[in-house]
Amino acid sequence: MPVGTQATVKAVAPRDLHDLGASIILANTYHLYLRPGDERIARLGGLHAFMGWNGPILTDSGGFQVFSLATMRRVDEDGVTFRSHIDGSEHRFTPEKAIIIQEHLGADIIVCLDECASPSDYEYNRQALARTHAWAARCRTAKSRPDQALFGIVQGGVFPDLRTESARFLTELGFDGYAVGGLSVGETKAEMYATLDVLDPILPTDQPRYLMGVGTPADLVEGFARGVDMMDCVLPTRMARTGTALTRTGRLNLRNARFADDPAPIEADCHCYTCTHFSRAYLRHLIQARELLAHQLLSIHNLYLMIHIAHEIRAAILQGWFQAYRERFWELWNRAVPSPMDAA
Amino acid sequence: MPVGTQATVKAVAPRDLHDLGASIILANTYHLYLRPGDERIARLGGLHAFMGWNGPILTDSGGFQVFSLATMRRVDEDGVTFRSHIDGSEHRFTPEKAIIIQEHLGADIIVCLDECASPSDYEYNRQALARTHAWAARCRTAKSRPDQALFGIVQGGVFPDLRTESARFLTELGFDGYAVGGLSVGETKAEMYATLDVLDPILPTDQPRYLMGVGTPADLVEGFARGVDMMDCVLPTRMARTGTALTRTGRLNLRNARFADDPAPIEADCHCYTCTHFSRAYLRHLIQARELLAHQLLSIHNLYLMIHIAHEIRAAILQGWFQAYRERFWELWNRAVPSPMDAA
Repeated sequence: MPVGTQATVKAVAPRDLHDLGASIILANTYHLYLRPGDERIARLGGLHAFMGWNGPILTDSGGFQVFSLATMRRVDEDGVTFRSHIDGSEHRFTPEKAIIIQEHLGADIIVCLDECASPSDYEYNRQALARTHAWAARCRTAKSRPDQALFGIVQGGVFPDLRTESARFLTELGFDGYAVGGLSVGETKAEMYATLDVLDPILPTDQPRYLMGVGTPADLVEGFARGVDMMDCVLPTRMARTGTALTRTGRLNLRNARFADDPAPIEADCHCYTCTHFSRAYLRHLIQARELLAHQLLSIHNLYLMIHIAHEIRAAILQGWFQAYRERFWELWNRAVPSPMDAA
Repeated sequence: MPVGTQATVKAVAPRDLHDLGASIILANTYHLYLRPGDERIARLGGLHAFMGWNGPILTDSGGFQVFSLATMRRVDEDGVTFRSHIDGSEHRFTPEKAIIIQEHLGADIIVCLDECASPSDYEYNRQALARTHAWAARCRTAKSRPDQALFGIVQGGVFPDLRTESARFLTELGFDGYAVGGLSVGETKAEMYATLDVLDPILPTDQPRYLMGVGTPADLVEGFARGVDMMDCVLPTRMARTGTALTRTGRLNLRNARFADDPAPIEADCHCYTCTHFSRAYLRHLIQARELLAHQLLSIHNLYLMIHIAHEIRAAILQGWFQAYRERFWELWNRAVPSPMDAA
């Protein structure tokens, strides 16, 4: 899922998102609640009409942003009070409030409010998990729109017993799908994969599993290998805005002078709009000249690559040759210069 | 002609330019010579291939930019020496060099090097005109590519005798078309229109006339009324980047809080991508949230409006009811709050 934090996937118009193969996008409840306001979006016909995207949308609950972006927060059993990162104003989310906001926004999939603990503090995770579970039950009760699916969020840091407890508790309550939160926030790749391995046999096989805020092309392969169905990450669009193109063998920093005369596209076999029309030399020129089109064209390529890899994995699974696909992927990927973010 | 100074119409991809009805775009020789370099663009297949635009392109000669952007300049009979506004490096344009650069770039229409004098200094205009004419003759001789059209530039400030002399001199030499330079640089609208009226009976009726660096929607109507065929201006894209939408009744400053809940498009009867998909409220949100998509969507609307007005004028002239169109245009336009830029 491309990330459209403020009701726009940065620098990419909805028609271009559709053209590059996006079937569902994510928007952030915390940001939209603060600006332009969920009630305003409801008055304007809901998020789909507001942002001109007629495909499915998922909104997160705002929990992660409250615990990572807000400038102050006080958690109690009933909810969390915080200050806006925009203007310092004080606000409060309760489980019921998070549902009301998401019902105003009107996404197709909404998510329970959770408390995001740092992944390696056992005691904090144990306490936060108790609140997250109580809040999940309250969100389930508060939900009133029959046209929205509600996902629970499995928490528990890197601790197998807490993750197991969380998955069992939430599946017993029963949700339309299950998000896995609190990963890709400082733990190792090995810990992330081990956590997914713990959850794989517990979560229902006939309902979607959504790994939140992950990841790189390699994460797609390894996440889907462990039963994940959906992911979102700002990586493709954020990298684009720093002049970095994602490829099947790693990354290209297009600011580099070695691309100044390079007539090749980012990837020779890529069919995205950017690769079929523009050279690395042109993209480097746009970056050097600080032209806005650079963000648009690199975002289009990076998103196309991620979505295309996801499509390939889906086809490989359905056709029974996913293991061969995975081996081939790693063979190419390991030719890349290793970066801390991608190393397993 | 949308302006693509650095081989990109700011924030608008070529496919979107095509969709909004652009048939020809302009690029700036001065900027492309400095970065990424005309020889590099030639090696990469020329400007059309480089920027992924397969329609016609016009490049100016760089004269106007040397006289407005460069940080130092010394003019002599043979050419002009100047410093780059990017890195302060010293460069020199002669008429022959301006043609070589434009032949490297490979636009469909190229333009003679001229000296741009301030419009109201008679003595300076007289001297600059002599150089501009000598340079035009040298450009005509230097031109070697049979697949490019060469336009002369009529100069002479706001002085009817100098303009008359310039138009006569250049038409006698003979060019593929005639640009009118040195307007919209400080003179009044009345002086600009009067200058066009002086030139109208002198310039050939069977060759294109290009009014450089002009203008507003009202300028399109009044320029075409005085025999102009082509114009370019950064106004639509520059206004877009400041959050301003052009309309048939003036302008909308979409930063204004009164648009926060406005579900209407910029213009109810506009068929551009922006107006058919997004509300003023959404556009204001994008501007407030500093989202890049704002530049793209406002540029698309502003360019669509300008090009659509040009198309309407063309149809009105061909069908014999231009005078009625012009009156109706002014009736709407005069409802707008007057701004110094648009007042006649």
